[in-house]
Amino acid sequence: MEQNILDGILKIEKEVGKLSNAQKILLTTDGSVTTILDVIRGHVRIETLEQKFIEADSKMAQLLNIEVGDTVNYRVVVIETQEPLIYAISLIAVDRLENEFKEDLIRADMPIGRILRKHNIESRREIKSVYYEEQEPELKKIFKEDSTMLTRTYNIIHNNEILIWLKETFPYKHFRD
Amino acid sequence: MEQNILDGILKIEKEVGKLSNAQKILLTTDGSVTTILDVIRGHVRIETLEQKFIEADSKMAQLLNIEVGDTVNYRVVVIETQEPLIYAISLIAVDRLENEFKEDLIRADMPIGRILRKHNIESRREIKSVYYEEQEPELKKIFKEDSTMLTRTYNIIHNNEILIWLKETFPYKHFRD
Repeated sequence: MEQNILDGILKIEKEVGKLSNAQKILLTTDGSVTTILDVIRGHVRIETLEQKFIEADSKMAQLLNIEVGDTVNYRVVVIETQEPLIYAISLIAVDRLENEFKEDLIRADMPIGRILRKHNIESRREIKSVYYEEQEPELKKIFKEDSTMLTRTYNIIHNNEILIWLKETFPYKHFRD
Repeated sequence: MEQNILDGILKIEKEVGKLSNAQKILLTTDGSVTTILDVIRGHVRIETLEQKFIEADSKMAQLLNIEVGDTVNYRVVVIETQEPLIYAISLIAVDRLENEFKEDLIRADMPIGRILRKHNIESRREIKSVYYEEQEPELKKIFKEDSTMLTRTYNIIHNNEILIWLKETFPYKHFRD
């Protein structure tokens, strides 16, 4: 594990409170979060709040290592069972998609981990940051409770290029046991 | 998650006892187990109990989808901190290794997850089975306690070929909290 990621975990534990094993794992794993949620919470699905194709601005271009103006699929989803579990924002470098799984990946209703597995995609995940943040009003409406949010960002890399940038965030009160 | 894996988890919970979130995740994740242990138990290392190059017998050939007689690196390790955490057996299809990380992979002292990350290897993990078994005498000596063992087998696939077959097993009494 990279030192900055471990430091992020230590900072959260010092300034927010102790983390459960499940919280630590969800913030640092390089495996599929969908698979983890499926086994600890039951089969999850996603609710898409927003999805659109946009031209990369300079920040997105930097995150995905693409050119400003390249096409990006921007998606905001809630991963949920009967209740919301994780709020996730993804940026997909559309021009790097292989045809074979492009269609699934820009469909609105399938978690990314499940799509990668369906298409037997070999990849690696590079965790970029782990931190906490105050809850934005929109998230309070979704999670229906006040709670500091635990957040991470990471890249899914395929063919040595960043295919997807992700931000996942969930309330500190979640996954406590 | 594949149905047979979920069924394996349900069978363990019915016949052995409830599983913690950490146990469920360790048995089913397609991410690095090293990374998970690093964050929930502190930096882990491996102790190699046995390592040798052998010719594949028919069972190994089947597991790795290679020919009988092909060279296999057989390794038995304990993943540990100050105490033993997980006992693991790996079979590596040596002829499929790329030179760039061959040397690390057959070295005795580095966890496989850390090696894959060091070399930026894109791969996928295919969980084959999850079950429990009685503790063999050798394992009782290592873990110094009587406990049913929780076990899984999986493949690490790279370039569409099985590179490594793994069996990981740990006492039911571990990772309870």
